[in-house]
Amino acid sequence: MKILVINCGSSSLKYQLINMEDKGVLAQGLVERIGISGSILTQKVDGRDKYVIESPLKDHQEAIDLVLRTLVDDNQGVIKSMEEISAVGHRVVHGGEKYATSVVVTEEVIKNLEDFIKLAPLHNPPNIIGIRACQALMPNTPMVAVFDTAFHQTMPEKAFMYPLPYELYKEDHIRRYGFHGTSHKYVAGEVAKWMKKDIKDIKTITCHLGNGVSVTAVNGGQSIDTTMGFTPLDGIIMGSRSGSIDPAIVTYLVKEKGYSIDEVNEILNKKSGVLGISGLGTDFRDIRAAVEERNDKRALLTMDIYGYQIKKQIGAYAAAMAGVDAIVFTAGIGEHAPEIRVRALTDMEFLGIELDVDKNDNQNIGDGMEISKPSSKVKVFVIPTNEELMIAEETLELIQK
Amino acid sequence: MKILVINCGSSSLKYQLINMEDKGVLAQGLVERIGISGSILTQKVDGRDKYVIESPLKDHQEAIDLVLRTLVDDNQGVIKSMEEISAVGHRVVHGGEKYATSVVVTEEVIKNLEDFIKLAPLHNPPNIIGIRACQALMPNTPMVAVFDTAFHQTMPEKAFMYPLPYELYKEDHIRRYGFHGTSHKYVAGEVAKWMKKDIKDIKTITCHLGNGVSVTAVNGGQSIDTTMGFTPLDGIIMGSRSGSIDPAIVTYLVKEKGYSIDEVNEILNKKSGVLGISGLGTDFRDIRAAVEERNDKRALLTMDIYGYQIKKQIGAYAAAMAGVDAIVFTAGIGEHAPEIRVRALTDMEFLGIELDVDKNDNQNIGDGMEISKPSSKVKVFVIPTNEELMIAEETLELIQK
Repeated sequence: MKILVINCGSSSLKYQLINMEDKGVLAQGLVERIGISGSILTQKVDGRDKYVIESPLKDHQEAIDLVLRTLVDDNQGVIKSMEEISAVGHRVVHGGEKYATSVVVTEEVIKNLEDFIKLAPLHNPPNIIGIRACQALMPNTPMVAVFDTAFHQTMPEKAFMYPLPYELYKEDHIRRYGFHGTSHKYVAGEVAKWMKKDIKDIKTITCHLGNGVSVTAVNGGQSIDTTMGFTPLDGIIMGSRSGSIDPAIVTYLVKEKGYSIDEVNEILNKKSGVLGISGLGTDFRDIRAAVEERNDKRALLTMDIYGYQIKKQIGAYAAAMAGVDAIVFTAGIGEHAPEIRVRALTDMEFLGIELDVDKNDNQNIGDGMEISKPSSKVKVFVIPTNEELMIAEETLELIQK
Repeated sequence: MKILVINCGSSSLKYQLINMEDKGVLAQGLVERIGISGSILTQKVDGRDKYVIESPLKDHQEAIDLVLRTLVDDNQGVIKSMEEISAVGHRVVHGGEKYATSVVVTEEVIKNLEDFIKLAPLHNPPNIIGIRACQALMPNTPMVAVFDTAFHQTMPEKAFMYPLPYELYKEDHIRRYGFHGTSHKYVAGEVAKWMKKDIKDIKTITCHLGNGVSVTAVNGGQSIDTTMGFTPLDGIIMGSRSGSIDPAIVTYLVKEKGYSIDEVNEILNKKSGVLGISGLGTDFRDIRAAVEERNDKRALLTMDIYGYQIKKQIGAYAAAMAGVDAIVFTAGIGEHAPEIRVRALTDMEFLGIELDVDKNDNQNIGDGMEISKPSSKVKVFVIPTNEELMIAEETLELIQK
């Protein structure tokens, strides 16, 4: 059984074809500049050279058509026919309050996704376009929508409600939704396997630290709180996003600094976070180099703020769950920045966390590693996330029903 | 030695005359509707009937003149002459990054306070007017400014910096300042006395839960982090303020709902928090009644959110200090809402917190009470705040130097 996983952005598209028998990735690729001059597809297959096609692609349907032709190509392909693709799993950012699980796409589902566009104006439209394009090209293949928000739909009211006028929730659906759900769910499941425990019996804090950052409290396998909120701007410091700040700063920037709302959005989403504090960029390797090479004060401050915010969030979510059994770090920075992990986990013995500093410094994480000491009551892991596999697994599960 | 404590609002003024020998309050009063028709002064003296004067007061100088005349009044007064007032301690909201301690007022100090008006446009102007008015009437009496922000100036950079473009800090002074400093300092000091410990040796989390709410991590007597931020809007749910929310909600309300920035400010400051969630008002007694009398769902949710946010903050600050020895609740709700305390402290045994539920339910807190079990590793207290006494003590200390 082979599942195609599609993640559509506004002008790009990522895909993986996964063999569900062995969870192996048959091919993965990226299409960029869709609808813009210079469209390009890059496909990687284990053991082969990277394959690049430059070809005008006027829309996502043409892009997906090219993906499918590449997958079945006599020389560069990995399957003989499109019929081998049992289903397509689509990453969809926003499932509103409607979808607490993945769902087989019907016309009604698409109508609902369209309703959620106002909650995710940048993300849901290309997600819908990707589904429509696949339906047109593969009318007999089931499509499944896997939502970034679904895993967090188990949050209780006290966690998802903002202290705002109640009508803003009832009428405008302003609440905490949370994102990165597929990743949090995946690594929380992996932690249970590592610990040889039933996920129902453990309390885990999952730290997804990539360009976007979110931390989730997973109690017995269910998300009970998460840092991203109404939008992916909420929560912890990110690559170029501010995370939570005093909301009065937003109004101050408009009233006192004369910025337009769009300019403020731009500042908070594109010029803040690691970039804003360091002045160096969003790539953590540049921050590290600045600290190592010239002890750059602002780069060091960036690491300190980042680690400190994660540390406080771990404390907060331990309180939310009446304790914690495991903590897991994943995604770019979570997997590859021991400087952040050591800041987040030092002096946390009062919580039962004992970090093994040598293991933490090991950059060779492979399929994952435990970085707490054997004596540590709370187990700490670094585990690479695999949202595509999770999407494929949820897709498989649904079509087998 | 007698110290007059003055807290000037835009159209009101609170005062206390304190005898520093026994810390006794000789008189306390409130002047309302200054500069508005119907000005009124109300003074309370222990053992006497409340004394009320209705008299037109065109400005704060006339108000303070009336306060002084009332204090020395043959029948209603408590002192013979203004000369008995050794100094005046003024509550000043914003001391910027300049003032980490209280200060004797000079012309230079007033100039600095004027510079901070843009950081506290509603509060610093009446504070300055109050100082000026006192100087005019008592030219030979020392004036001391005691800042709401000063106690928090010990916060490290990683706690006070927002993940915004660095220039917004350097040029526009946008950072976390924190407020309620006098209250946090006072109750942290009281906790040390209750525990018979040197404040330098304990880690305390101080929860000031009034109309405004702030929680502070006090490590060895120093504020190392606090929830209020650039303004008193940041942090935890309050009476009518939202506290921290996804900053994208602010821009959403403007762009999608068509609100002006002033309307959004109004929503976040006046229509959110306890009022917004419950729909009932900002008075916690109304929330309690709605739960007790009709099991009102939104009133119950309000309590749940409030307690949950405090609980998470306690966890976060325990992490920030590598543990916690004591937690103290103060101010209106902190002192009088066991429902909030029980929600914040239940299932916190993993942190060493064992709440004594019966003690917690005791409404008769007197000078303070311990509400943790004797076996509790972390001691929990309810202690009435006394910002006026703290201001008087800081004033005395400075003029004795």
